[in-house]
Parts: sequence; structure tokens; C-alpha cells
Amino acid sequence: MAPASLTVLGVEGLPEIVPGSSLGALLADRAPVEQSDVVVVTQKIVSKAEGRVVTVDPADPDAKRRLAESEAVRVLRRRGELVITETRHGFVCANSGVDLSNVAEGSAVLLPVDPDRSARGIRDAVRAIRGLEIGVVISDTFGRAWRRGLVDVAIGCAGIAAVVDLRGTLDGSGRMLAATEMCVADEIAAAAELVMGKAAHVPVAIVRGVDRSWLRESSVAAEIVRPYGEDLFR
Amino acid sequence: MAPASLTVLGVEGLPEIVPGSSLGALLADRAPVEQSDVVVVTQKIVSKAEGRVVTVDPADPDAKRRLAESEAVRVLRRRGELVITETRHGFVCANSGVDLSNVAEGSAVLLPVDPDRSARGIRDAVRAIRGLEIGVVISDTFGRAWRRGLVDVAIGCAGIAAVVDLRGTLDGSGRMLAATEMCVADEIAAAAELVMGKAAHVPVAIVRGVDRSWLRESSVAAEIVRPYGEDLFR
Repeated sequence: MAPASLTVLGVEGLPEIVPGSSLGALLADRAPVEQSDVVVVTQKIVSKAEGRVVTVDPADPDAKRRLAESEAVRVLRRRGELVITETRHGFVCANSGVDLSNVAEGSAVLLPVDPDRSARGIRDAVRAIRGLEIGVVISDTFGRAWRRGLVDVAIGCAGIAAVVDLRGTLDGSGRMLAATEMCVADEIAAAAELVMGKAAHVPVAIVRGVDRSWLRESSVAAEIVRPYGEDLFR
Repeated sequence: MAPASLTVLGVEGLPEIVPGSSLGALLADRAPVEQSDVVVVTQKIVSKAEGRVVTVDPADPDAKRRLAESEAVRVLRRRGELVITETRHGFVCANSGVDLSNVAEGSAVLLPVDPDRSARGIRDAVRAIRGLEIGVVISDTFGRAWRRGLVDVAIGCAGIAAVVDLRGTLDGSGRMLAATEMCVADEIAAAAELVMGKAAHVPVAIVRGVDRSWLRESSVAAEIVRPYGEDLFR
């Protein structure tokens, strides 16, 4: 049964994240985390903590595109400066998720190598330090093929379902639901973004009150990434 | 500036919605709405209130597909029983949004003719009856090309921005953000879904605490729908 309410809290006041920062320890110490919370952490600080920052020649107008293509297994579309790629993780997104904002001039932030593992690391640290069972979602900002505007989605998760399978359950009329697999990890990432803003220095949010049955082992790679060949549009 | 927190409340105990029901009056009377709330209403009850229910021969296995195609301006892909279409509104979704669940056997629910207008009607009724300025989002459950699982998105809105344009604002490093147009209406719809569940009889949720600057005139049709020809994948 879905909960009657949930709360989304922005976590402010975190220090600058540098390579080697332990995000899990930091959140355990500084974030008001409670049992069964889902902590949403933006990709950028995860990548920074993991040292996924590379130098880029600011004078080279083509550097970002080349970097994006070097992070891709397939380039799906090109239009002007924009490339839509499939990353090694299987994400289809702009510029392979390479990000030039919020970093010093001359550097770019790449996606984490294994965002599910990043999420597990944070979850494990909070468990070890605080004794709390939480879910963790690593979020990033993606476009969509047919809708304008960007939304935050989950690129990694631990301890919280990525997709909740409602197939075989009964709807409100007592009728069998055919196929309603809700991607709750993406919805949690989206909810968290509403309190983050892009310029507000809020790289972490807590989503409190999600259905307890969703707190289980999971993986974005296994549950959300649609393999090449399974989709209808690649 | 983004808010530090927000709350999502499921609205339970609404009566069965029938053609002619005034959802605005119902929510004004029954929902714990406050000034500056965003009320998210699922498409299904909007369509029912607007009489967008048609009869379908349950013995005809092809009836749903024919109905979906009759609601489309383009059929983009077919795989087995699934058709991905572009609706008259410009939405790209499965089966033109035609829904056979949660309705009595032998009937199907179509999308509202103009979901932005539906949202304005609810907003106007709550304003007239309660004197409250609120935002309204009409939500529906859509799949995505490259990600498994479904998420709720906005198909209509009123009084709440569909897309918030952060272009030209400064990021946390004081660096100009290139293009960060967040689709907050979709993120609000996703957040609301987390308290709705599919079988929990919660067709309405209140999202309280969104950035006040987002409460403005808007339209999903004008701001979110990506016109045919502008996208890279149709």
C-alpha cells in the first residue's frame, strides 16, 4: 500500500566535495538521516568524490564533443553541438552525461564508473556508522526524446527498488492490472530535484515516507536500463 | 531559490467520479488544499468526469488497438499488442493513452480532449469556491524509450510552470549555466505518484512547498510537447 504522505528535505551545508571524500561518512555525520529514508545524491558530487574529473582545453570548441564520444559505446544522434549517446552503462543521454557546469574552468565531470556500486558504498557507510537501513539513489539530469525540459532520473541505487512490479495485483475495481511497473527510483530522483534547484548548493535530498516494501536490494543497471535491441527507438 | 523541503499528501476518500462530476468543486470541498499548493489529479478521474469513456467489445481482441489508432495522428511503432502513437495532443505514448484498467468491463477511458483546459477548470473552481491560488497538474503514466518502468508525467497544467528556464542563471561556481530547463511539472507528477499507488484509490495528491516563483500561467501543450520534426527520434 502506498503511503499517505512523504516529505522531501534538501540537505544543505555540505562541504566542497573533493576526490577521496567519503560521501557515506559525510552524510552519516551531517545529514538528518532516519531509518528507512531514501537519500538522493546528485551524480556530480559522487563523480567528484570518485575522482571522475578530467581536464579539458577551454580553447578547444570540440573538446566536449570528443570527450562525450570517448565515453560512449554508440553515438545515436548528432545535432549541432549536441550528441545523443549510449554510455557504457547503457544510459541514453546527451553528451554521455559529461558535465562542464559547476566545475572549475578547464575540467569536466564524467559519470561514475558504476553508479549502483557508488550507491551501495554510501548505503553501507551510513549503515556502518549510524546503524540505519536506508535507500540511496544517485541522480542525474536527463532529457527525453519527446518532451521538452529535463528531469532528474536514477543512474544508480541501493536498498530501494528501482522498478516496482504491480503486475498481477488488483486495481481499485478488483480487476487484474496487466502491466504497471512503476519506476519509483526515477520518481524519487524527480521528487528530490524539486528541492535541489540547480544553483542552490543542495546536492543531496532526503525522501522520507516511501512505501516500506520498496526498501530492498536493487540495481538501476539490472532493472531500469533497457538493453540495446529491446527498445523500439534506437 | 528552491525550497528546503516539500510535502506530498495523498487525498483519499473521494467519491466515485462519474460523467459530469465537478472535480474542482469536489477538491475545493474535500481536499485539504492550502494557498500555493499544487494539486495533482490523475488523468483517469478527469477523463471520467468529462465523459471520455467509450464502450469496447470485450470479446474483440483487436478492439483496444483499433481504439488506440483512432485516437492517434501517427502510429510510430508496433510490437505485438503494443502500439506507440502520437496523440492529437502531441504526446508520444503507448496505445494513445487509452486505458482499460479501473473501468468496468467493456469500457475504455480516453485522454481528456484538452488537459490544460481541464487543469484550468479545476484551478478556477478552487479559486472561486475557496479563494485560493493553486497550481493544478493532470498526470498520466507513460513509458520511456530507453528506460524500463513507467513514470507519471504531466499531460496538462494550470497555475504552475511546466518548464522552469534556468538558462542564464549562475551555477554554484558563479559560472553561467548553459541550458538547464527543468520540467518541474513532470517532476511534480512523479512525486505525486509516489503516494498514489495503483491500487490504493488515491487519484489526487497535494504537493506543498514548491518554489513560489513557479506558480504562474503555463501549459503542457506549449511548454512540454516537443513538436514533430523538432525531436531526433520520431
